[in-house]
Amino acid sequence: MSFNPLHNARVVLVHTSHPGNIGAVARAMKNMGLKQLYLVQPKLFPHERAGWRAASAGDILDNAVVVDTLEDAVADCGLVVGTSARGRRIPWPLVNPRVCAERVYPELTEHPVALVFGREDRGLTNEELQVCNLHVNIPASEDYTSLNLGMAVQVVTYELRMAHLSGALSTDDMQEWDTKLAKSEDIERLFVHLEETLIEMQFLKPSAPKQLMTRLRRLFNRTRMDDLEVQMMRGILSSSQQWVRKAKGEKSKF
Amino acid sequence: MSFNPLHNARVVLVHTSHPGNIGAVARAMKNMGLKQLYLVQPKLFPHERAGWRAASAGDILDNAVVVDTLEDAVADCGLVVGTSARGRRIPWPLVNPRVCAERVYPELTEHPVALVFGREDRGLTNEELQVCNLHVNIPASEDYTSLNLGMAVQVVTYELRMAHLSGALSTDDMQEWDTKLAKSEDIERLFVHLEETLIEMQFLKPSAPKQLMTRLRRLFNRTRMDDLEVQMMRGILSSSQQWVRKAKGEKSKF
Repeated sequence: MSFNPLHNARVVLVHTSHPGNIGAVARAMKNMGLKQLYLVQPKLFPHERAGWRAASAGDILDNAVVVDTLEDAVADCGLVVGTSARGRRIPWPLVNPRVCAERVYPELTEHPVALVFGREDRGLTNEELQVCNLHVNIPASEDYTSLNLGMAVQVVTYELRMAHLSGALSTDDMQEWDTKLAKSEDIERLFVHLEETLIEMQFLKPSAPKQLMTRLRRLFNRTRMDDLEVQMMRGILSSSQQWVRKAKGEKSKF
Repeated sequence: MSFNPLHNARVVLVHTSHPGNIGAVARAMKNMGLKQLYLVQPKLFPHERAGWRAASAGDILDNAVVVDTLEDAVADCGLVVGTSARGRRIPWPLVNPRVCAERVYPELTEHPVALVFGREDRGLTNEELQVCNLHVNIPASEDYTSLNLGMAVQVVTYELRMAHLSGALSTDDMQEWDTKLAKSEDIERLFVHLEETLIEMQFLKPSAPKQLMTRLRRLFNRTRMDDLEVQMMRGILSSSQQWVRKAKGEKSKF
């Protein structure tokens, strides 16, 4: 298996109080493709509540490394990032999670990088933040700035995963379409059929067409129809034509 | 106070089982600056576990709107986005949370936009996904693709907040449209009318519907119809019905 840079990203939780949060972090990490979890003096660990919240990420908990100090947790790391609230007394280079990922990701091929998250109630102390090279802040609303610990890990690791995938991510939303997109000539034939049918139905009056066909063209052309859809629409039109012709035929009998 | 686009973003939770997750969603929403929470038949709500997990976001829970159906929750929305796993049987335009935010954010100045999240265990059903214009997928690791509900809301709303803070480059290709985009409820009425007409035409056999309505829903839902287009399509359907009834020798209702 080839080297996966995300396996060099380490989540470090400092003095976590609630084991449920540790489990939630494990799940978020596994969802985002990370593996390394370090716990600095967790209050309760291992614990069944951690297991429940981890769901299918129990392996992350099993492999978690419990240490005594933050320094122990980051000793072999080439870059240490700490999560921080805004407005600390001592200013420090502060980035949002996207910029954080842009800085961290390229370094993962070189050395382990630590992402350090503090206590649920007070975050990291100034001393702990000074162990870090870089501070990251999630730009929350002023109405409520304090994210749940698991949520903070989710956001920071999500950005790391997006950086990881950025070469592979497509903005083409029709990428995984199941049917071949229709060719222009087939769509043109559909419009001919549509116009013919609407005229037979006397819905479209050639003497006063208004903008009907223009608007229908716009509707169906902007949607990028596939082959099956064109076929389906033409089936509906043919059926309509049959009914109209039948009605006109019977009418003459009355 | 000036208008905040994020207040027009609506989180819709469908059939949530665990009240704790509803609370976690409320907190994530308030952290990210959102306000509107709609709950479609939550299993337990209100509930103390929701309150605990919401922490200081109790106001979001207090103002949550409980409704019976997804259609009720999104009736007045101009754009409906559903969270989806990959690999559904019928593909739909599918974007990641970043592209989702780039599409959604510019529209928030025009109409409410719904972000719909499904059940903890099974997500949204195919029928529910067909109410949506666009599907969003969080690109999780293949080792563990299923995010906790609160985490999924956190990621999607985080991207919306980042778009809000970035001054949002407008990628809204419907921005200068000449006609108001149709509301979800009007499009649902069109589908009812369409199905009714196709059955009268004997094109759609209720005993063997195949995937006809599913495919038609996908065709018309992904295209973001405007009011005039809905009106035009309904005019064509009414005209077809008249011809079918005439052919069958029935008295037209019209």
